[in-house]
Amino acid sequence: MEAVILAAGRGSRLQALSACKPLTPLLGTTLLERNLRLAISAGARRVIVVTGYRHEDIRQWKNRLPLRIRKCVELVHNPHWSSTENGYSLAQAASHLSGRFLILMADHVYSLELLRTLVECDPQDGAVLAVDRRLGRDGIDPQDATKVRLECGRITALGKNLQRADAYDTGAFLCSTALLPMLDCLRQSADTRLSGVMQTLADAGKLLVCDVGHAYWQDVDTPADLSAAREGLLASLSGGKQADGPVSRYLNRPCSRWISRRVADTGISPNMVSWLVFALSSLAALLAASASWWLTYILAGVLIQLASVLDGCDGELARLRAQSSDYGGWLDAILDRYGDAALIAALTWQAMNGDGPSAFWLGMAALAGSFMASYSAHKSDRLLKESLRIGRDLRMLVLALGVALQQPAAALWLLAIAMNLTVCVRVYKLRHVM
Amino acid sequence: MEAVILAAGRGSRLQALSACKPLTPLLGTTLLERNLRLAISAGARRVIVVTGYRHEDIRQWKNRLPLRIRKCVELVHNPHWSSTENGYSLAQAASHLSGRFLILMADHVYSLELLRTLVECDPQDGAVLAVDRRLGRDGIDPQDATKVRLECGRITALGKNLQRADAYDTGAFLCSTALLPMLDCLRQSADTRLSGVMQTLADAGKLLVCDVGHAYWQDVDTPADLSAAREGLLASLSGGKQADGPVSRYLNRPCSRWISRRVADTGISPNMVSWLVFALSSLAALLAASASWWLTYILAGVLIQLASVLDGCDGELARLRAQSSDYGGWLDAILDRYGDAALIAALTWQAMNGDGPSAFWLGMAALAGSFMASYSAHKSDRLLKESLRIGRDLRMLVLALGVALQQPAAALWLLAIAMNLTVCVRVYKLRHVM
Repeated sequence: MEAVILAAGRGSRLQALSACKPLTPLLGTTLLERNLRLAISAGARRVIVVTGYRHEDIRQWKNRLPLRIRKCVELVHNPHWSSTENGYSLAQAASHLSGRFLILMADHVYSLELLRTLVECDPQDGAVLAVDRRLGRDGIDPQDATKVRLECGRITALGKNLQRADAYDTGAFLCSTALLPMLDCLRQSADTRLSGVMQTLADAGKLLVCDVGHAYWQDVDTPADLSAAREGLLASLSGGKQADGPVSRYLNRPCSRWISRRVADTGISPNMVSWLVFALSSLAALLAASASWWLTYILAGVLIQLASVLDGCDGELARLRAQSSDYGGWLDAILDRYGDAALIAALTWQAMNGDGPSAFWLGMAALAGSFMASYSAHKSDRLLKESLRIGRDLRMLVLALGVALQQPAAALWLLAIAMNLTVCVRVYKLRHVM
Repeated sequence: MEAVILAAGRGSRLQALSACKPLTPLLGTTLLERNLRLAISAGARRVIVVTGYRHEDIRQWKNRLPLRIRKCVELVHNPHWSSTENGYSLAQAASHLSGRFLILMADHVYSLELLRTLVECDPQDGAVLAVDRRLGRDGIDPQDATKVRLECGRITALGKNLQRADAYDTGAFLCSTALLPMLDCLRQSADTRLSGVMQTLADAGKLLVCDVGHAYWQDVDTPADLSAAREGLLASLSGGKQADGPVSRYLNRPCSRWISRRVADTGISPNMVSWLVFALSSLAALLAASASWWLTYILAGVLIQLASVLDGCDGELARLRAQSSDYGGWLDAILDRYGDAALIAALTWQAMNGDGPSAFWLGMAALAGSFMASYSAHKSDRLLKESLRIGRDLRMLVLALGVALQQPAAALWLLAIAMNLTVCVRVYKLRHVM
């Protein structure tokens, strides 16, 4: 699949916030970069960005993208951007397209959920438009929005001034190559609006409907729209992750969301947060291993719990900004494991100093169990539904309490038994499943 | 994809070895079970075994299969097995088939490579036959073998008595549903041979060719054929694994192959070998941690190296018997990591007793690095080509030498630096790749 992002317009109503509308900042990224990353996450191998106004700004933005993203992007300039409409911009991209493709608007904010729903549709020999049936929804101006009329899963009419409307046009299309010859004709036509092409398709009964359900999207034309988009995306954080354990759900997640909302607009990247969590864990380990005063132990315990809270922020920031990446998840997992190792080693040291050298073996059992529970989860997560899952949230709390209350041996016993038992249960249960 | 294994015949020439030909033992498994597991590994979701002679034996064999395999198998009985040919047996299975399917002969030995090559072919609206162009190959009796004549990627004739032959028929077909109506007709016909059906298909230009190259296969009719199959499969072990490091290639692998050949015919399963390796590692760790006499250290070192050699046997046995499974690989990885942990803990203990308690931190670094190198390999193996890879073979040798020569700190330093460096290099290199 390919994707086209239309980013040629001037967007005069947002000029107070940004000279170039597609590069308007939003939660630490820009409207355009957000859509680019979403398109790639939704499965686009190549993304064509059609520029017009402030082409040079967008060219420079492209050169600053990380290599992994940059190599998927191609810029196409529409030299007649000021005298033509968005259909003409799309026509400029047509010669670069070879198969099924997405059309996104640079000035719309989409959610990954919306795009994933759309790309699962089949455009047959026409196109599919993602529509939102929640007419009168917050954040959308019903006068200004493009609306559609539906009949039996097909769109019969679309425009801003429909007499009777059934849904909003979210500005995200999935098209078959049947659209390409129509775009060729459009270059010669007087009406260069994309909605003109789509109306022709609708008249032929070839514009299909994809209902996005409750997936988030927002058309951004004014500073008020931008604020609405920011609030809408921040609100989408509340969902949390399904894998969250109880400590995470009731203690860590509310705190981490509070923090994520406050740092979302800064340049702090998810990977930076992963490194920070690792640094905090290491510092806590150093304190715990060298402490001799009760307040130092308390401080180390607090640092461990703080690291546990911040451990939720990297994923939250990544989801907020559509910056999730395989590398980010992998790096986070590796740094988390190193952090675990440092903390368990520190507790073992603490226990050895208190209870004698034989606590060494207890620490080894806890460390091996903790590692192996993560190591074995790769496969078991997909295949087993574990009713009782001891996640990192709970492990970190046990470690924090063990350090702070100067009961390292108790914490290590708990971890050693629980984590190794988890692995044994998986080894036993998976033998018939895999 | 589905698969049919034809197992109805009497196989009188092998009766001296086994009352029921499909259940003839071969390298710790049976001809039929081998083909069943191969078909599943090659992608068959459901395998229909057509029985005839000794149906009850095969029904009992089915009930003894592990659940994961058993639930893919369906037995269909050909009550007229003694008066009909193999085409009639296949026709009995026809009503159970709904899409593309493999046909395998219970009395043929195939390699996974052969089946994987075959299932990548497209039978179009006919069938594909896997053929072997190595006429006069060892182990195949050119008089007794079914041969084929080829023309432009199609088979024009097949039979035992062809005047001019281009290749052997390996007895493995991939068929489209176009075959099903032909099988219906065959029930009423006098000629119930499968080769008759295939000749009809060939006459219509619809029997395509899949050249299996050097992939191994063997038709088993006589005790001599069975010996040839045994030798052929054992010889295929020589390839080793591409991921083998130098210690493995020149020291461990020749030894493990020697052992695998000797235990192949026994009931020792690959998973048992994985557990044995873990037990040996744990025993070696116990010896190393509690030793005080130089000979005990040497013995522990030898045990570690022995465990490292045996660590190759589980995979070899699994490949020999077509018993490779996700679970087996996963269990092996988990037990290996626990073995690593036990050994590194033992060396750390040894080093702490010699060099004082600060060796604890060195041991922690070695353990964390060793774990993380395995943990991070999941992703990096697919994405990075590592010129210098420190595999388990090399790690175990370092540990064995460290214990035997009573230089645990040196071994731990080596591991701590090398393994953590490996992880750092991956973290650095993958940042643009993922």
